[in-house]
Amino acid sequence: MTGEGRKDDPLTGPVTITASDSPDQPTPSPELRDLYRGFEKELLVPLWTEIGDLMPLSPRPSARPHVWRWSSMLPLAERAGELVPVGRGGERRAMALANPGLGGAPYATPTLWAAIQYLRPGENAPEHRHTQNAFRFVVEGEGVWTVVDGDPVAMRRGDFLLTPGWHFHGHHNTSAEPMAWLDGLDIPFAHYTGATFFEFGPDEVSDHSTPSRSRSERLWAHPGLRPVSRAERLPSSPIAAYRWEHTDAALNDQLALEDEGFPGVVEPGHAAVRFTNPSTGGDVMPTIRAEFHRLRPGTLTAARQEVGSAVWQVFSGSGTVRVDDREWRISHGDLFVVPSWAAVTIAADAGLDLFRFSDSPIFERLHFDRTLMEGQR
Amino acid sequence: MTGEGRKDDPLTGPVTITASDSPDQPTPSPELRDLYRGFEKELLVPLWTEIGDLMPLSPRPSARPHVWRWSSMLPLAERAGELVPVGRGGERRAMALANPGLGGAPYATPTLWAAIQYLRPGENAPEHRHTQNAFRFVVEGEGVWTVVDGDPVAMRRGDFLLTPGWHFHGHHNTSAEPMAWLDGLDIPFAHYTGATFFEFGPDEVSDHSTPSRSRSERLWAHPGLRPVSRAERLPSSPIAAYRWEHTDAALNDQLALEDEGFPGVVEPGHAAVRFTNPSTGGDVMPTIRAEFHRLRPGTLTAARQEVGSAVWQVFSGSGTVRVDDREWRISHGDLFVVPSWAAVTIAADAGLDLFRFSDSPIFERLHFDRTLMEGQR
Amino acid sequence: MTGEGRKDDPLTGPVTITASDSPDQPTPSPELRDLYRGFEKELLVPLWTEIGDLMPLSPRPSARPHVWRWSSMLPLAERAGELVPVGRGGERRAMALANPGLGGAPYATPTLWAAIQYLRPGENAPEHRHTQNAFRFVVEGEGVWTVVDGDPVAMRRGDFLLTPGWHFHGHHNTSAEPMAWLDGLDIPFAHYTGATFFEFGPDEVSDHSTPSRSRSERLWAHPGLRPVSRAERLPSSPIAAYRWEHTDAALNDQLALEDEGFPGVVEPGHAAVRFTNPSTGGDVMPTIRAEFHRLRPGTLTAARQEVGSAVWQVFSGSGTVRVDDREWRISHGDLFVVPSWAAVTIAADAGLDLFRFSDSPIFERLHFDRTLMEGQR
Amino acid sequence: MTGEGRKDDPLTGPVTITASDSPDQPTPSPELRDLYRGFEKELLVPLWTEIGDLMPLSPRPSARPHVWRWSSMLPLAERAGELVPVGRGGERRAMALANPGLGGAPYATPTLWAAIQYLRPGENAPEHRHTQNAFRFVVEGEGVWTVVDGDPVAMRRGDFLLTPGWHFHGHHNTSAEPMAWLDGLDIPFAHYTGATFFEFGPDEVSDHSTPSRSRSERLWAHPGLRPVSRAERLPSSPIAAYRWEHTDAALNDQLALEDEGFPGVVEPGHAAVRFTNPSTGGDVMPTIRAEFHRLRPGTLTAARQEVGSAVWQVFSGSGTVRVDDREWRISHGDLFVVPSWAAVTIAADAGLDLFRFSDSPIFERLHFDRTLMEGQR
Repeated sequence: MTGEGRKDDPLTGPVTITASDSPDQPTPSPELRDLYRGFEKELLVPLWTEIGDLMPLSPRPSARPHVWRWSSMLPLAERAGELVPVGRGGERRAMALANPGLGGAPYATPTLWAAIQYLRPGENAPEHRHTQNAFRFVVEGEGVWTVVDGDPVAMRRGDFLLTPGWHFHGHHNTSAEPMAWLDGLDIPFAHYTGATFFEFGPDEVSDHSTPSRSRSERLWAHPGLRPVSRAERLPSSPIAAYRWEHTDAALNDQLALEDEGFPGVVEPGHAAVRFTNPSTGGDVMPTIRAEFHRLRPGTLTAARQEVGSAVWQVFSGSGTVRVDDREWRISHGDLFVVPSWAAVTIAADAGLDLFRFSDSPIFERLHFDRTLMEGQR
Repeated sequence: MTGEGRKDDPLTGPVTITASDSPDQPTPSPELRDLYRGFEKELLVPLWTEIGDLMPLSPRPSARPHVWRWSSMLPLAERAGELVPVGRGGERRAMALANPGLGGAPYATPTLWAAIQYLRPGENAPEHRHTQNAFRFVVEGEGVWTVVDGDPVAMRRGDFLLTPGWHFHGHHNTSAEPMAWLDGLDIPFAHYTGATFFEFGPDEVSDHSTPSRSRSERLWAHPGLRPVSRAERLPSSPIAAYRWEHTDAALNDQLALEDEGFPGVVEPGHAAVRFTNPSTGGDVMPTIRAEFHRLRPGTLTAARQEVGSAVWQVFSGSGTVRVDDREWRISHGDLFVVPSWAAVTIAADAGLDLFRFSDSPIFERLHFDRTLMEGQR
Repeated sequence: MTGEGRKDDPLTGPVTITASDSPDQPTPSPELRDLYRGFEKELLVPLWTEIGDLMPLSPRPSARPHVWRWSSMLPLAERAGELVPVGRGGERRAMALANPGLGGAPYATPTLWAAIQYLRPGENAPEHRHTQNAFRFVVEGEGVWTVVDGDPVAMRRGDFLLTPGWHFHGHHNTSAEPMAWLDGLDIPFAHYTGATFFEFGPDEVSDHSTPSRSRSERLWAHPGLRPVSRAERLPSSPIAAYRWEHTDAALNDQLALEDEGFPGVVEPGHAAVRFTNPSTGGDVMPTIRAEFHRLRPGTLTAARQEVGSAVWQVFSGSGTVRVDDREWRISHGDLFVVPSWAAVTIAADAGLDLFRFSDSPIFERLHFDRTLMEGQR
Repeated sequence: MTGEGRKDDPLTGPVTITASDSPDQPTPSPELRDLYRGFEKELLVPLWTEIGDLMPLSPRPSARPHVWRWSSMLPLAERAGELVPVGRGGERRAMALANPGLGGAPYATPTLWAAIQYLRPGENAPEHRHTQNAFRFVVEGEGVWTVVDGDPVAMRRGDFLLTPGWHFHGHHNTSAEPMAWLDGLDIPFAHYTGATFFEFGPDEVSDHSTPSRSRSERLWAHPGLRPVSRAERLPSSPIAAYRWEHTDAALNDQLALEDEGFPGVVEPGHAAVRFTNPSTGGDVMPTIRAEFHRLRPGTLTAARQEVGSAVWQVFSGSGTVRVDDREWRISHGDLFVVPSWAAVTIAADAGLDLFRFSDSPIFERLHFDRTLMEGQR
């Protein structure tokens, strides 16, 4: 049973009822088979043969825990750089994680897209806008500017940039070096639910200047301050870039507070900040939560289960992550996926810095959220 | 490309890149084919071969407009009543609409479940609870009581009943006649996103009494009043049943106001009420909007497109509905589906009463909502 | 020390510092007296002589508990009916409660106005609107219609009517009998904080028809339903009248539930409903909460203290109320005031029905709310 | 007529009806006088003699525009430093602005308190907490630490510090120089409405250390970031200090954007930032809005009227302010009051930096807010 058909399928009996799938029902009699054929003809499916799959005791996502090695992805991105141009139509030279449990779809999880995007010196990814919300996290490098509604935003190591839904954006590489970074979007969610709109912008980014700070940061990225001229609540954050220096400082501050015996960290040895929308104090975008985590050397996080899925990228350091029954050693650039309700715990060797994004806002806003910590019942 | 794989698939190269799908890319060279094989091996998928499907100019849902005839469904339900018992495990004798565009899944739309449930005299559907939100709409008949967290709620023609997520509920038929009604749930959405929890309750409903009014109505169903003892905002409505007499009166009041030259109707000849959560004034449940519409004889509604999907059931009267390029005559009990962004317009012959439910709250709470009325640009 | 001066005072040293008021300060030396004269000249007042009054350990309102007897007020209202015309300028024949602790101001409490309004057969109170929020509670009688933004609303015994801020309203008595009712407004609060705007409307009410139900009720007073044509959140309730039959039924339902062993009442023998804004589930107006309470015979309510003030009117029955150290027997029509943080408890003889309004929303929206129940610490 | 009586007044006819006050009523006849005596005896006041004062066409506050000169206040504060000790009981050596229209009350406006507080080297203002919300703005100097719930917060020139309601706080001067600063509180509002609670803390501040940054800043004052360990919405801002460097930089950024032709300033030549609660994006405290304004040399602000009152303090520069028909030249440290609905316009000579606080949140949360700009109707 699938949730999405191919668009060009003729109406030729796509409904198949497999009665034997359900252990609580005996082998169907001929009359029951006739009934099931009747259902199929009318495009009806009985609940009692499906309920085990549809209504499990707890989430059993199709998506699986998996890790993607940066050391494998980057060479492929570089090779793509040689063979595949960037331009109108293809729009972006981006290669998405395809979760092995999702049948080949370019989805990290059923709601989240994660991809490596690669731009070579002088290249230009054309401007467009779409309802899907997007962000960029820069695990290494610099030299590319993202232009957001005409506002040029520098991209540098450790920076977190936003292009919320329906804001025009394009990218260009002004430097002599290629650059690769992580794109995150709610493409799967928007596609599944039918919330997709797209509009082309200029083929060339609308502004090639390279200011160190974007106009959005100059207006909005001052701690605890907002411009009086923009007093309203915005659906997404107006800060186009969250610079590494602030993230790094905030994490260090939490660990220092822990050293001094004061609260701040999530748990011993584990500092974490959430990127926020300063006009609401809430998440950066309606469907995506983004955080940065820092683990001291030797820290082991308490196992945690949450409704909803997450994608992590290692920024620096090394350690081991365990998701349900899978375990991997992870280091710089590696990406791993935590499906809904999977138990995740991370062990840092000599310290570990990780970027994390998830679909938590979807569940919180729809009252579907639930969390279980190790030791809770 | 699909969004959900089968759980027991081995990790055997589920990723297939069909480069020729994308008209903007030339036939791949051997080097490009090698690159694509490299992607597949690493479970990566390039955006540029998928973007046409993932990021269309406007929604192109897999789900299709379709109609299900009550006159076909009811006999099948009756036959199921003869052949399939109701009890623990199967839980409910319900038969769900399977949208022809969704590959056989028991989904009316990617987010919404709609089914006919059938209970014969003396039967008992056991108590359980689940995170999926549910409601019942009674297109005809009576005699069944739904017990919600121990509170018996009568079901009668024209009534709209709620069992919001995680509330125990069961059904039993106390009368001498079988009864069939419409079940609506967010099963597809919860399943897709991994938000499914389920818990068994007693095998027999916990209270067999048959009061005319439930305790929830006695506390909450007084216009504009709420009990001081329950002053908080609740995620879902505490009203277990919205009785037909009130819905009918409210619709008649709107049409009378129109006759007198005052506002109230949605458009000429078209009255509509929304069922609400009295503790917030918002929708009855976080993911589901429910409304009732009454069209005067001869009314033709303006075409309307919305992000998100809807399912309608005709309560009484007859008319014609047009969804995109499909058109059907509809009458009592018929159900039809409006996929995301499909243009829907309804024409009433000798008056038409319709129940409607949709996933609008999902899009409004996530800022994905968009509406286009006939004539707008 | 007062909070409001007379507008025409010249600037002639209105500041007087009474150093001896403060027990913690010794008798001022000559130097200190000079300093205080210096302060007075510059219009400065030291905190240390005022802090005992300004920052007490708990609220010490100037307003006092007090009772006004309907049997005294009504004859005065009738006499006013003989001597004082109703018309443009004076606007309303209303006589307000003047709390004995508020220096003669026509304020029941520092935030709330309560008055008896009286209209004789054929009389017309002209239309106007103002930012101050208003309501009417009808303790007895009928025959007057209030026209709200052109919508005629009947007034009958036990009804609760709203005229939220900035809605035009006027009254006219179509019957052969005079009528008196309770007006409640936030006049003192609006006056003190400077939020007062007023606009004249027609001298005669804009519609003399006498429908049994107003248009607002026909649109909005159906339990759990709202018109789809008005989907937005409104700052005040759109229901112009809450009819006695619903209030009475809701209270009886709570007591019946108590008899059956189910929750619903506020405490044993004490049912209470809050009038709500159906577009939000919150209070009827931003500054005023309105409730109706029913006590069984012999009920004694637990003592309760709240930040903020309340005014109660007895609708029927009799009993005793105790507010701090004052105690009165009360019966039909009597009004009593509970100042901020005063402990109130009510004892019913042969049953007691009371209407209550308070300024609670002000404190809740400004996070100043606090409640203490008998027995709590 | 006043809104507050003295607590120890006996009940000796505080109600006086001055019929002749109302021009629309003729000179009372003997019968009418008798009626008025009857009202007074029952503690009733007729609306028709008061309505002109209670319900004006637009706000006519008792408070008046006024200016307090820092050059006059500071010497008085210094003299108080010599004569009046700081300690338990008096609590703070603070001298409050007493608006000339408020009858001698230590109120800058009916809702807002503004005072100069003065602490000499080595002095200690004991810890306490109260429901009244408070802040400090440092117009000059340094050397004092405010301890907020045990967290030491440095006070330096240009800094804005918060002590929201019910947080323990005390001050101590660790330096060799005295220090004076501006205190702002909602004392008048809390007093008038009866929302006052107070609790003593330690006589000596609980922590004498002098860190440059408080723990609250280390947790919360990173732009766009919040600690994951504190994910909830807080009623007041958790940032204890907003440092001058950020305010200054944000204002300069706005003016630079204006130079470049981009939006950001409130109007030409006028930059302004609002201090916010990062957990909500809203105002710093429920009753108080705080902002900082920078005017370029030669700027003249558009006249603006708002419901609610404001207090401004000049930080640096010089200019002229006009409030209704009053006009003053202003410079460093001067404080001026803008009563409700008074038209204010500011002209900068050689640039002007001003701190501003107001009661706007009260009116916005209660839907009483209204603004009129020069040229609007």
